[in-house]
Order: sequence, then structure tokens, then C-alpha cells
Amino acid sequence: MTQVAAIIGGGVIGGAWAARFLLNGWAVRMFDPDPEAGRKIGQVLANARPALRSLTDLPMPEEGALSFHNTIAEAVTGATYIQESVPERRDVKHATLAKITAACAPDAVIGSSTSSFTPSMLTAGQSARGRIMVCHPFNPVYLLPLVEVVGSPETDEDAITACMDILTRIGMKPLRIHKEILGHIADRLLEAVWREGLWLVNDGICDTGTLDDAIRYGFGLRWAQMGLFETYRIAGGEAGMPHFIGQFGPTMDWPLCHMSDVPDLNEALIARVAAQSDAQSGHRSIRELERIRDANLVGIMRALKAGNWGAGTVLNAADAARKAAAGLPDMTGLVRTADRTIPLDWADCGGHTNRARYLQAFGDATDRFLELIGCDADYIATGYGYVTAETHIRHLDAVPSGEPIIMDTQVLQGAGKNMRLFHYLKHRDNGHLLATGEHMLLHISLETRRNVPPPDWMSDRCGRVAAAHAALPMPQGGRCRGR
Amino acid sequence: MTQVAAIIGGGVIGGAWAARFLLNGWAVRMFDPDPEAGRKIGQVLANARPALRSLTDLPMPEEGALSFHNTIAEAVTGATYIQESVPERRDVKHATLAKITAACAPDAVIGSSTSSFTPSMLTAGQSARGRIMVCHPFNPVYLLPLVEVVGSPETDEDAITACMDILTRIGMKPLRIHKEILGHIADRLLEAVWREGLWLVNDGICDTGTLDDAIRYGFGLRWAQMGLFETYRIAGGEAGMPHFIGQFGPTMDWPLCHMSDVPDLNEALIARVAAQSDAQSGHRSIRELERIRDANLVGIMRALKAGNWGAGTVLNAADAARKAAAGLPDMTGLVRTADRTIPLDWADCGGHTNRARYLQAFGDATDRFLELIGCDADYIATGYGYVTAETHIRHLDAVPSGEPIIMDTQVLQGAGKNMRLFHYLKHRDNGHLLATGEHMLLHISLETRRNVPPPDWMSDRCGRVAAAHAALPMPQGGRCRGR
Repeated sequence: MTQVAAIIGGGVIGGAWAARFLLNGWAVRMFDPDPEAGRKIGQVLANARPALRSLTDLPMPEEGALSFHNTIAEAVTGATYIQESVPERRDVKHATLAKITAACAPDAVIGSSTSSFTPSMLTAGQSARGRIMVCHPFNPVYLLPLVEVVGSPETDEDAITACMDILTRIGMKPLRIHKEILGHIADRLLEAVWREGLWLVNDGICDTGTLDDAIRYGFGLRWAQMGLFETYRIAGGEAGMPHFIGQFGPTMDWPLCHMSDVPDLNEALIARVAAQSDAQSGHRSIRELERIRDANLVGIMRALKAGNWGAGTVLNAADAARKAAAGLPDMTGLVRTADRTIPLDWADCGGHTNRARYLQAFGDATDRFLELIGCDADYIATGYGYVTAETHIRHLDAVPSGEPIIMDTQVLQGAGKNMRLFHYLKHRDNGHLLATGEHMLLHISLETRRNVPPPDWMSDRCGRVAAAHAALPMPQGGRCRGR
Repeated sequence: MTQVAAIIGGGVIGGAWAARFLLNGWAVRMFDPDPEAGRKIGQVLANARPALRSLTDLPMPEEGALSFHNTIAEAVTGATYIQESVPERRDVKHATLAKITAACAPDAVIGSSTSSFTPSMLTAGQSARGRIMVCHPFNPVYLLPLVEVVGSPETDEDAITACMDILTRIGMKPLRIHKEILGHIADRLLEAVWREGLWLVNDGICDTGTLDDAIRYGFGLRWAQMGLFETYRIAGGEAGMPHFIGQFGPTMDWPLCHMSDVPDLNEALIARVAAQSDAQSGHRSIRELERIRDANLVGIMRALKAGNWGAGTVLNAADAARKAAAGLPDMTGLVRTADRTIPLDWADCGGHTNRARYLQAFGDATDRFLELIGCDADYIATGYGYVTAETHIRHLDAVPSGEPIIMDTQVLQGAGKNMRLFHYLKHRDNGHLLATGEHMLLHISLETRRNVPPPDWMSDRCGRVAAAHAALPMPQGGRCRGR
């Protein structure tokens, strides 16, 4: 049965929450009094689709249905999960939560996107306090996985558990914080940097562009994969953390940053920041910057995915869960070995898929087929696997990145110690044949690298598929003959 | 003539400076009184080689010669660039700089790795004050490009210019800061986060692992590609920076971080941080963490390189400069179209090159050959180019990542509207043939996608190479016959 999420408050944050749920197959019921809400959310969805779909190598569910409602009560009807992202004002939040709790299901999870209020501040005087918690996301919410999850002392533990389970299922990284504080964790760290950065601009030490470069060419690169404490642990080397702190622990005797009062945000300072920001970034529109940002984040996150580290582990876990839920395809006809969107970071400068990525697409399809006949990670761990000896690709048409494609695979040779696969790469919507890839694979001992027969059960399984496929038309363009 | 750099003080920072210079072909003269210096620097170099070489797609220069010297005076003899990375103590720095300036060439550049002292603090009482400046790098120095460059009021502007030119030539990003302050820019921002982070651990809001996750699953990903001000500009949307500051400017009325005095770094807090760090990271050795970190950073930086953004622009600029300096290869025999190290992020879990990367390697070699016959970015901008119609790859042996490979290219068909290239991928050191790739390319109008003849000058150029190559042995394994 389709799950239902209610998004109360659109905009950059609410619209991106809607995208997360919709693209994971949930129905989304939206409430936003802004008459422009439909248009604005449409823009967020247009950015979100190619970006979020770039993070997975597997078919995503059918996109859910989005509906707009005139009242909060209507919007939350039937919703399992409710996220409020209304303006950061206590009175507005309280009024919103009161309307939500008056109408929602008793077992609904109610998350707040608030960046500064504690859960206790939100729940004060509310009914259904046990269901309300902070679920603070990070822009762009359709790409960055982090959600800070904080309950008040009155939030039910099983509501939090249900919440974190849902967030995981929509591909996010819920981070439980067990103690309330203004700003939770990340925004407190950001506030510290923001204050110091404004001082440096205020005092003419640097302009906004120089400060940003001091981040993104240096420690900013580190923090995409390891945080503060792990980075310092490594820097401390074998001597360890206590030694590192002894050497580099901050001290009032050596104030390496301001005492963090705040510079006077007067007109002159605001004008200076605005002018420097224009000089730094003004040659690109906000839309352009968003698209560049999203393409960069996709590239960074897919790099971490390949290394199965940090944010990449979230992507791999989501793919694994989806794969486990998918079940096995029919193999009596062509085997559907891929159903995906071409990731944003597979594009060359013309917006077309870089030719080198074709082999990656075919390689992924080959890996999927091997998995289906039992050559999965567990089997490979026993010391055997398949290597590719020969590849033949016909590049028939250009593939724009962000487009949906499917891969259908035919087994030309199955039983025995060699395997021949033929992949058809097609546009998913119009069936247009974009490329073909043929591989000759050898079953080998990973230790000796020698070509040895696979176990009978695997050879039989593959041979049965080959026999069924022998009844299908033979592909054109087959070239791999072996040596 | 070989350039000479002197590195005064080894360790993690000095050793990585040495790596940067050596791998860019400079001779490096090292001074470090630690009897273990040779071993420690050897370890840094062993990490640095595959990592730094992963950032480029072009041949790197022959590695320079490393020599160890018993005195600072000997080490700085003949050095154009001198970098001190001795312990962060004023007396030690002063004594070191005095010895350097007493013996170095009058036009040498003298950089200090100091993370906290201002250049004026360093140069007080020194001779050759005009040549001394802060050049503050970031760990791992052989990967992260940022160097904060700060002169004192007495530093000569042309010394700073010479310094920044050298740093650019060794592939770094020198960031000029025009006004002195303790900690320069980045470490002040880090100090602000460090203080707030220690408070959060001190007050039991979270442990070290949770804080690190709040960074690396959220804003840390953003900061690998855009800094604080640009990120906020986008978040402010069309309303602009003044509006954003009005809404989110930090204020003493709503203290989202501590007043940044420092928690008492007593034994109990230090022990708590150390224990949490052990729980978070202790299952991996420092060496393992360093290698994981470096592989992650390579992946992130190569992703930014592909998108030509942020740190990626530094890599592309370095490659462009090296390509311009290299000149044209001999094309009467096989054309050397690649000479590179297999990047760390091209490895699959077994440490071998992921098969999909073979097509990327062949694609890069094809692009290089096309460039050599005049199909470069300028030509493509006129609306024409070559697309690959067909690819045939024989995967003959596994290629471990981090290994040096070369690509030699034979033209099987050159003149006219189609081109056939045959690439031999070999191990650079032992000449072992690892794979072959054959491509059929079509010259097309990028607008109509129709296969049209190239201009006569390009057809002639390519045809001459094909004629010369017809005298060479024909490759085995050629399969592309066209349709």
C-alpha cells in the first residue's frame, strides 16, 4: 500500500522533502498558503529528479503522486509521516503544530525542520507531544543525506525509531542527538564559522571569495569524508589524541579566534558582504549555481559511494535494501539488468554521456547478471569469479545525462568456463537502441588467475538461461570470437 | 636546469612538502636533526606517490633527487625555494630562520609552514626580511592544494609573486592574504569549530563520532566545492545576500554557539575525548586511516576535476601547463598517447583496475590523439568533432591501481571521414601488454550528427600518420569492421 507523507510548508526545504518522498514512491500531500507554491515546488522537483536519481545505480520506484490541499487538516489526513518546514518563528511553528496534531493519525510521526528551536520549545503546550521531534535537514535536502533527529524528554522512543526507519528508507542518514540544545550540532558549528568569517570580513582581513577558497581548497575537501575529530586523530599520529590535544588544544592564552561576540551587523557591513559576494559569484545566476552545486555533489557522493565511505555508505545501503526488496527478474526472455537514470557526473561538456561511461554501464549490467546466476559477493569471497576477456561496444546514439535508460541482456554462451553476454542499452521511455555491448567472460580462480570451470550449479543456472535465450533473435553486431 | 628546494624540518608537513617538490621534478635538500627523519619521510613519500600521481592524467616529470644534510647552511645551498616546517615555537622558528637567512641565496624564497604566527612575528629581528613569508599548507600537503600566503609589511612583493608562481608550478593553490592575523584564515575557522565541538563533547550533547557525522554527512559535503558565503548566497535565493543576513545573521540575542571561551581542558575532558575517539576510529590504524583518507580525497578531487570546479580547476590548470610544455610526440612510429599512473579511485575492491576504467583510459588516449591531429577544443568549438562508433577491447591482464602505464597508438585508417585507432596499453616499467583497444571513429557535424569529411588539412595530417603506421606490424585482435 502506498505510504503517504504530508509536507507542511514548501519552499527550498519543504519542496526538497517532498522530492525525497515522491522519488521514493510515496504519495505527498502538500500544504502551503503561498499562491506560488506549486510553481516553486515544481522548480525544486525539476532540480531534484536528475540529482537524486544520480545517486543510485538501481531502478527507483515509480514517482509518487503530489497533491495540494487548502488546509493543514486535509493535508495530514492519512499521512504516516508529517514534516513541517514553516518559517522559523515560534508562534508560527506552534500554530502549525497545533493544527497538525488536531487532525493527524495518533501514530503519525511529526518532524520539524527547525534549525534553531529545541524540541521542548516546539512541543510546549502541544497535544501528541510524544510524536513530535526535530528532524533537521541540510540544503539541498534532495542530495545531502544528513537529518539531525532530536526528541524532547516527552517524545516517545518508538516514535523516534519509526521516524529514523522512514528516513533511512528514503535514503537519508538520520543522526540521533540525545540531548537538546539550540541549533542542535551542525548549525552551532556553522554559527561559529559564520561569526568568525564575518569578523574577518569586517576587519578587512579577507573578502568573501578568499574566505570561501580557504575552505574549499583546504579543510573543506577533508570534511566531505572525515570529520573534525577523526582528522585530528590522524594528524596526532601514533602519539594519539591526548598528545594532539596537549599540543593543539585551544586556549585562552592564544586566542586563535575572536571571543565570538558578534560584529555589529550594521548597514555598512551588510553592504560590504553583499558587494563582495556579488564580485565573487554574481556572474552566475542562482539557478546556475544550484545546478553546478548539484552536479558537484553528485560527483563527490558517487566518488564516496565507489569507495564505500562516509556519505557513500548511505547510498550503498539504500541500493542494497532496494535490491533485496526487488526480487529476481524473469530470465526466460532478455534479462533486465539495469533500469536507471544516467548520473549527472557521467556527462561530458556537451551534456552527453562521456563515451567511457558506456563501459561502466555495461560493466554494471554484467555484474548484475553475474549476481543473478549466483556469482555475488559471497561467492567471490570463496576465491572465484568472472573476469572480462573481451569487450565489443557499438555506440549507436548519444545519451544525454539525466535520461532514463534500461539494459536488457542476452546470454549467447552460458554453460562451462566461458560466458558470452550481449547487452542492449535502450532509452527507457521510447525504446530507442542507444548502444550494444558484448562481453566474453572467463571464470577464474582469483588466486591463480587460471580459467577454470565454475561449480555445476552455477554452470547449470547460466546454461538454462542460455538455452532459453537461444530461441531469441541473435543480436547483430556480435564480434567477440575469443582468441 | 633542475630547480632546488630546501626543506627544513621533516615530519608529516615537511615530508609532504618534499613529496610535492620531488614529484614535480625538483631536487630536494632536507635538514632534520631527528635520526628517524629518513624513515619517516620515506613513509610520507610512499603515501604521496600514488596519491599525488592520481590527480593528473598526464606524464609527471622524472622524480627529483632527495638528499639529507647535516646543517641548515648546507641544506639551503643552491635552493631557489626554502620551506621551514620546524616545531611551532617562536624561539625554534627564529633560530631556524636566522640560520637559513645567513646561508641562503639573496633571491631565495623563504616560506614558513607556521599555523599560528604572523609573518611579522617571524621576521622580527631577521635579516632578509623581504624574502620571508607565511606559506601555510594543509594536511595531507601532497593532496590538498591550499597554501595560505601572507607577507609581513616588509616582505617584498616580487618575493611573494615568485613564491606563488613556484607553488602554482608544483600544482598547489596559493591563496594570498593581504593582512596579518594570528592563525591566518582557515585555522581561525577551524579553531571556532574546535572550541564549539569541545563544548558539545564536554556538555554531553554528543560524542566525537556523532559530531564528525554531523559534518561529513551534511555541510562538509558542501564545503568540498563551495564555501560559506557562496552557499549562503544560493540559500538566500533571489532575495539576495542582504535578505539572508537579515534573516540568519548571528546575533547576541540568539546565541547559537557558545561565547567561545574554551572549556577547561582538564584530564577528565581529555580522557573523554580520547576514549570517544578510540570508540569511533580505533578499529583502524593511523596508516589505514591515512590510506582511506587519501583514496577518498583522490576520488573527490577527480570528481571536481571532471566538473572543472573548485579544487578540480587547480588540477586541470596544472595538466594544461604540463601539456603545453611537453611539445608534440614523434608520430612516425606508434604515438605515445598516455603515460600515467592508474589513479587510486580506479580500483575495484580487489585493488585491480575496475574494468570500466579501461574504456576511460582508451578514451583519454583517443582524445589525446585527436588533439594531436588538430581536433582540439578550438576545433570542436567550430561545430565538428569525432564520435566513437565502435569499440573493441581485449582485457589481457589485471592492472593494479597506483601502477604506471603507457599507451601507444597505431592509426589503422586515417584519411577521410572515418578513423580507426588501435591502442596498446602496457605497463611502463616492464612493457607487459595489459590490454588493447580499437576504436572506429566518425567525423561528424555536432549539430546534425551526420558523418561528414573533415577539412583537408586534418584528413592529410591523419592520413600521413596512417601511411607511416602502415609500415608497422598490424595489430592482432583487430575486430572493428564497421556496419
